[in-house]
Amino acid sequence: MSNVLRELASVLEERKQADPEESYVASLYHKGLDGILKKIGEESTETVMAAKDGDRAQIIYEMTDLWFHCMVLLAHQDIQPDEILSELERRFGLPGHQEKASRQER
Amino acid sequence: MSNVLRELASVLEERKQADPEESYVASLYHKGLDGILKKIGEESTETVMAAKDGDRAQIIYEMTDLWFHCMVLLAHQDIQPDEILSELERRFGLPGHQEKASRQER
Amino acid sequence: MSNVLRELASVLEERKQADPEESYVASLYHKGLDGILKKIGEESTETVMAAKDGDRAQIIYEMTDLWFHCMVLLAHQDIQPDEILSELERRFGLPGHQEKASRQER
Amino acid sequence: MSNVLRELASVLEERKQADPEESYVASLYHKGLDGILKKIGEESTETVMAAKDGDRAQIIYEMTDLWFHCMVLLAHQDIQPDEILSELERRFGLPGHQEKASRQER
Repeated sequence: MSNVLRELASVLEERKQADPEESYVASLYHKGLDGILKKIGEESTETVMAAKDGDRAQIIYEMTDLWFHCMVLLAHQDIQPDEILSELERRFGLPGHQEKASRQER
Repeated sequence: MSNVLRELASVLEERKQADPEESYVASLYHKGLDGILKKIGEESTETVMAAKDGDRAQIIYEMTDLWFHCMVLLAHQDIQPDEILSELERRFGLPGHQEKASRQER
Repeated sequence: MSNVLRELASVLEERKQADPEESYVASLYHKGLDGILKKIGEESTETVMAAKDGDRAQIIYEMTDLWFHCMVLLAHQDIQPDEILSELERRFGLPGHQEKASRQER
Repeated sequence: MSNVLRELASVLEERKQADPEESYVASLYHKGLDGILKKIGEESTETVMAAKDGDRAQIIYEMTDLWFHCMVLLAHQDIQPDEILSELERRFGLPGHQEKASRQER
């Protein structure tokens, strides 16, 4: 599992105790689910726009924003990013997964 | 960096050679950028809807779909998921990053 | 109020009795609220994409799709398009509205 | 055609000359296409959220916002709302349209 995602999840968990006036993430939690979901809608639109512009740096910038707010939603819902990565692996038949499956058959 | 994301990126790269009639990912590449972006718009809406339902399993399912199609966009644009994770780390001041920075100061 | 919107609202009301296998609108009602909302998410993304392309005919095409599915949502929720138009007029201080208001002051 | 939409289109046209610091619409024009499209993404997400809440007044409020920003996009692109309404009528076979068609056959 990604160390970056795991560390970010840990930071986002800590921010549940932070002051909404001092932490952007705490201010998002304070707005509640709707505030977080609005950001996901915004950032996905901005990702689409950056891709239409063919602007590589902007795609990276906006997709980072999109993933960040996805991570905030996961934290808000007490879902670990591992659960998304496991589902990705399970669903899309990665080689590692297939290899593991074939090993179990032995 | 996440092994799952790295492996998925590698699979998505391979699928650039696959037959659009046999591979879903190849069919998305074949539709081109607009086909991929439509999916990102769809999956972000479905993530929002799942969260409004408060349906934990559905949030995981839809966010996996959203991240998967983000990964397809990255592959289509020849962007490695590492670049998103590095930007996440850089931008949101993770402890590991801060620790690394402080180490570099020594 | 728009005759086109009023007539469309009336047609959409009638389609509540139609066979989902023969009418696209009836098939949307049959899918329920989530099916309709997914279309709104899709069509708004496609409107954004058409606008980024600067393709005038495509903007008209996609915005028509967006408004159409908005009208289906309104019908599904038993909301008349008049209620949207009145709110538009009320909120954005149209001249006609202001003129009407000033007339009432006489 | 809707008087409200026609009047709103006329107001939105006038605001092209307004001061971005005094008019919200002028401030949107000033941000340019991307600023307008971001609002369409935001408002469509908020419409979806209001519908998931089953909150009738909120659906009206958010859909009004969505249509308003669609109208701003149309003004920015020099497209009349009539063009959307005509396309709606043409595409979705309204009774009035069918009646007109049958009249032309006489």
